[in-house]
Amino acid sequence: MDPADEEVGARYSLRQRLYLHLEPTAWPRTGLSPANLVIAVLIVFAALLAILETEETLRADAPRFFQYAEFLILLLFSTEYMARLYAAGEDPRYRGVLGRLRYMRTWWAIVDLLAILPSLVTMGGQNTFLLRLLKLLRLLRLSRLGRFSRAWSAIAQAVQLRSFELLLSFGAAGMLLILSSACLYLVEGGEQPEAFGSIPRALWWSVATLTTVGYGDVTPVTALGRILAGITALAGIGLIALPTGVLASAFSDALRRQAAHDRSGQREE
Amino acid sequence: MDPADEEVGARYSLRQRLYLHLEPTAWPRTGLSPANLVIAVLIVFAALLAILETEETLRADAPRFFQYAEFLILLLFSTEYMARLYAAGEDPRYRGVLGRLRYMRTWWAIVDLLAILPSLVTMGGQNTFLLRLLKLLRLLRLSRLGRFSRAWSAIAQAVQLRSFELLLSFGAAGMLLILSSACLYLVEGGEQPEAFGSIPRALWWSVATLTTVGYGDVTPVTALGRILAGITALAGIGLIALPTGVLASAFSDALRRQAAHDRSGQREE
Amino acid sequence: MDPADEEVGARYSLRQRLYLHLEPTAWPRTGLSPANLVIAVLIVFAALLAILETEETLRADAPRFFQYAEFLILLLFSTEYMARLYAAGEDPRYRGVLGRLRYMRTWWAIVDLLAILPSLVTMGGQNTFLLRLLKLLRLLRLSRLGRFSRAWSAIAQAVQLRSFELLLSFGAAGMLLILSSACLYLVEGGEQPEAFGSIPRALWWSVATLTTVGYGDVTPVTALGRILAGITALAGIGLIALPTGVLASAFSDALRRQAAHDRSGQREE
Amino acid sequence: MDPADEEVGARYSLRQRLYLHLEPTAWPRTGLSPANLVIAVLIVFAALLAILETEETLRADAPRFFQYAEFLILLLFSTEYMARLYAAGEDPRYRGVLGRLRYMRTWWAIVDLLAILPSLVTMGGQNTFLLRLLKLLRLLRLSRLGRFSRAWSAIAQAVQLRSFELLLSFGAAGMLLILSSACLYLVEGGEQPEAFGSIPRALWWSVATLTTVGYGDVTPVTALGRILAGITALAGIGLIALPTGVLASAFSDALRRQAAHDRSGQREE
Repeated sequence: MDPADEEVGARYSLRQRLYLHLEPTAWPRTGLSPANLVIAVLIVFAALLAILETEETLRADAPRFFQYAEFLILLLFSTEYMARLYAAGEDPRYRGVLGRLRYMRTWWAIVDLLAILPSLVTMGGQNTFLLRLLKLLRLLRLSRLGRFSRAWSAIAQAVQLRSFELLLSFGAAGMLLILSSACLYLVEGGEQPEAFGSIPRALWWSVATLTTVGYGDVTPVTALGRILAGITALAGIGLIALPTGVLASAFSDALRRQAAHDRSGQREE
Repeated sequence: MDPADEEVGARYSLRQRLYLHLEPTAWPRTGLSPANLVIAVLIVFAALLAILETEETLRADAPRFFQYAEFLILLLFSTEYMARLYAAGEDPRYRGVLGRLRYMRTWWAIVDLLAILPSLVTMGGQNTFLLRLLKLLRLLRLSRLGRFSRAWSAIAQAVQLRSFELLLSFGAAGMLLILSSACLYLVEGGEQPEAFGSIPRALWWSVATLTTVGYGDVTPVTALGRILAGITALAGIGLIALPTGVLASAFSDALRRQAAHDRSGQREE
Repeated sequence: MDPADEEVGARYSLRQRLYLHLEPTAWPRTGLSPANLVIAVLIVFAALLAILETEETLRADAPRFFQYAEFLILLLFSTEYMARLYAAGEDPRYRGVLGRLRYMRTWWAIVDLLAILPSLVTMGGQNTFLLRLLKLLRLLRLSRLGRFSRAWSAIAQAVQLRSFELLLSFGAAGMLLILSSACLYLVEGGEQPEAFGSIPRALWWSVATLTTVGYGDVTPVTALGRILAGITALAGIGLIALPTGVLASAFSDALRRQAAHDRSGQREE
Repeated sequence: MDPADEEVGARYSLRQRLYLHLEPTAWPRTGLSPANLVIAVLIVFAALLAILETEETLRADAPRFFQYAEFLILLLFSTEYMARLYAAGEDPRYRGVLGRLRYMRTWWAIVDLLAILPSLVTMGGQNTFLLRLLKLLRLLRLSRLGRFSRAWSAIAQAVQLRSFELLLSFGAAGMLLILSSACLYLVEGGEQPEAFGSIPRALWWSVATLTTVGYGDVTPVTALGRILAGITALAGIGLIALPTGVLASAFSDALRRQAAHDRSGQREE
């Protein structure tokens, strides 16, 4: 439609066009190429299928559906893999048969293959526990597409810059967890040996309370235990405040820096 | 009382006055007109009635009260609808009979009609399940009145500006949900097939833990399961920190921009 | 110790000294006067006593202790009241017998009297339910002392400035509560009529979920109900983010303004 | 490797080298010395051991492991203590036998000794409840090492600067706790005397609700009780917002100031 689109269609060979549409870094405009958008939707659908497949009642209700869907995914992912392998020739590093073998040993090509193999084995009649979990790894493929990968690395960088603050927060959290567990173990250990009979046992209650999750499957019953639990719950607010503040500001810093970087990058183009 | 008030009262015809008082955008001063304030209170009251009506014990206690209140609401909303239809003639687009028909097909006029119809049907003796829910839609009418509609659109705009950050946060949340569900499914699936026997089942526990709601209706019982659950609960703090930070700053940005816009608008007047 | 202290001791009459020490606004230095500090501790102790007194097992364990403590509080609070009444004469408005009667009708004098009366009645052998709650009102007296009253009014002012944002947040929260209640009522009402049989009943679950309290006494059991509950729990994060951000910034604004005001006040002195 | 390293190795006597490596403030470069890093790992391992030791099933499974590990810790901590005692002679204050006795009476030397003694007693066959808790005190030793001690004092300073705000937040939280407990005691006390029969009993529910922990072991059952509980839960959001905001900003202020201080310190060097 716009001149850029015209360009993509008109002047390039099939392999060049495949490369432009499949390789996320090669796409000349912002956002995902239509081909990669379709693939992203397909990955989400395949992951959803792998999640639902673990539920036996659903498998029993529609055994055919899962089989057919799996076959379709196998077909589409295989086709995509072949197309990527063919298009990789546009990159000087992966030219020729030896180059293609080198391409197949790259990180992303292995991830792509790992997304296909479980389906292939499933087709052979097998559908074990482990296989289904392997299928979940397909979601990893999403992280390659588009801006996400760059955003993730920006976040990782920002977290690294504040690693000392986060370490300190987690250190304080750990100390608080151990302290409250030791207190409850002392006070409630005699009354409820099953739940508070040792510090590791009391830690289960401690984590649930300090993170304000509060399952309520174990709770102190003595008066002193409840007073200590109340103090722990109030201290939990502070425990949450520290890493929340650090993480939230690290996150917003990362995105601001990323945006500034993107803008300066576009200006250079 | 103030000159503006005098103006409204003195120089205009009945239809003009109705239009000024009923049409939120036509009211010359800040805030709601007295008529729309009364209508807002009425809408809240009608919605409250629709909520309480779903409780059978209350209906049994005071059957007459609900009938009479419903009738009153029908009467007042119908009167309001007629008044709005009559006043719509002030707008050149809705002049004449055809104009009024055109007005009746606008979004807000349909919402107003939808607020009346269920009461009308109720009067005819019917009071089904669905009807009561339709009555709740009356609350939608609130969103038209006064500054709220502008504030909402400002918020929508701000959220849209940060949609990438929010998408990223929700993506990370989704990944964390699936990851923790898969872990607990692996570890606790054998022990508690009812609660952790598949990833979709484990998701119920996962959502409750990562959002720190923590119902406690399902909890891991094995040592490894509890260690993973503790890590999930701690990760939940980070999960909450990211969208909280983004949403809070988007919200405050929107309101600041809205306030700046209001001020510049007043200056222009 | 410091010259200001010397001043207080040396040049004034007993009534003047009482007035300086008892009237919080008359104290020439920052912080509370020693007398008011003692009274503050006494108020906290009296409130603690009123709280513990409601527990029957404690009353049975140490009936004498509560009687004696109550008598002591009565004695001290009465003495304080008399001293305040006497010292009030320093204020031209409350001079003479008529002035003292006028003082006794002021807000704070009535609060002081209300803190004494329940103890007086208790001494007469009565100790009813209502009486114990009246004793809790003693805590109100704390709010008069020192900087707190000014800080509270600063906070109240700041909250008022952001009342529109808070109203909007609470409006959104209310809409979300009603929406999720209506959904769960539709989906789970048939399965669990006791817990979700009407919108008011479902609201109990809704509040617990959206505030991330999550008691777990009622939880959805159907698949669709759990999906909707999961969405509600995730939406709850946003619900908390908005008022938290607004309140936190209103609070810090208020304290900054208060601090600036205090500094400018000190400079003027 | 770098010149500083060469220096440490080449020019100093054994005692000087021990002092440089063991005394955290003497280490010429940023971070921990390798020796102190090993000791830090050892402290964490010893604390972990003390935590796991409280669990009887683990002690029964591997009685030898705990004995041997304890012996190893005793050996290593004793060696370290001796080395520190010997190296202390580098400090003019602790020179000679009398100086060493003076060193042994310093705060950190006592903490170091307290970390050894329980192991020594354990070796003698005893392994009581109290002894295991004493072993947890070993974690205190961590706080001496490296930047942490300075970071902690910076945080303590920042919290002190905002102590009035925090006091105010906690005061408001306390008032809210007492108010909601009193309300629930009034409304639910008759229905559930075990859980709400007195204000101290109702406080247990109150803390769990206001901190959004929500165990769910006690919940109101009457309609009015649930309405009040819902209001309490919503108020809990505000209760969390205030100290969270204050603590988060105090924390980030402290770290910024600390970083600025570190930079200016490095420039002076």
